[in-house]
Amino acid sequence: MKPDDSKTVYDGKLIDVVVERWGDHEREIVDHPGAVAIVAVDSEGMLTLVRQRREAVRVELLELPAGTLEAGEAPLDCARRELEEETGLTGGSWREAATFYTTPGFCRERMHLFFAEELERGEASPESDEELEVVRWPTSEIAANVAAIEDAKTIAGLLLYLQKVG
Amino acid sequence: MKPDDSKTVYDGKLIDVVVERWGDHEREIVDHPGAVAIVAVDSEGMLTLVRQRREAVRVELLELPAGTLEAGEAPLDCARRELEEETGLTGGSWREAATFYTTPGFCRERMHLFFAEELERGEASPESDEELEVVRWPTSEIAANVAAIEDAKTIAGLLLYLQKVG
Repeated sequence: MKPDDSKTVYDGKLIDVVVERWGDHEREIVDHPGAVAIVAVDSEGMLTLVRQRREAVRVELLELPAGTLEAGEAPLDCARRELEEETGLTGGSWREAATFYTTPGFCRERMHLFFAEELERGEASPESDEELEVVRWPTSEIAANVAAIEDAKTIAGLLLYLQKVG
Repeated sequence: MKPDDSKTVYDGKLIDVVVERWGDHEREIVDHPGAVAIVAVDSEGMLTLVRQRREAVRVELLELPAGTLEAGEAPLDCARRELEEETGLTGGSWREAATFYTTPGFCRERMHLFFAEELERGEASPESDEELEVVRWPTSEIAANVAAIEDAKTIAGLLLYLQKVG
């Protein structure tokens, strides 16, 4: 599956935009390095989420800890790094639970979802442009609370987690 | 919540890219008109999905019927239009089940998820740049089959549907 023609129309820091010609139509496509998200449960059985100001959409959202892959970085390494930075959680037992595309109609972002359990609590060290509030839920309250979530990866990740442990 | 400065760096057909300055950092943001997706169940209790070639990510994906909002279009009108075009399904009983952001870290796309039941089958009329294959599953098989899905909105939508009817 290859386009007949491709040109980069925007070359940015996080994303690029390419316009590809496929037969008789053109596609505008956002190029993205990929990402990770983590359903993080500590050794006391508490799920850890992060609430943050999402400037792109002008609201605060409660989400799974997540982050963008750096060049050449393995998804699991990225996930452990982002989780520790955002929440201080370390250690634990990890597995890659799913991979999915976030918006396959116009963007190449592919997300690796991890389930991490038996995590140990420590100090968070968020990056300077991140203001994060750590929020903890007992895992028994996920099903009742998921209706308040407004982020697609978080809804998908939490319900996949419930399906696999439930 | 307002940026200190904003400039459009790419002005496209479906999407724009803006770079916003927020205090000491800049954000690259994809502007997008918003979208709809539908968990569509017909009067025989069959879920309807669409399999399509997703050129952006170079694979075929099985997804909820979905589409992009046109200027000024109400989400429900868009959802009924897209569902009929892609699958031929009409009528039925509809409700808006959730709204969520698909990728709030860098894109404004907000998705309206509908549950439509008791739909009537008819002829599909896809747009010329869409090659769609309609796939039907008994709703009783959703839980077992969802692990094969690689699209975030479809995982979220199907598991929310199971949670609300189950």
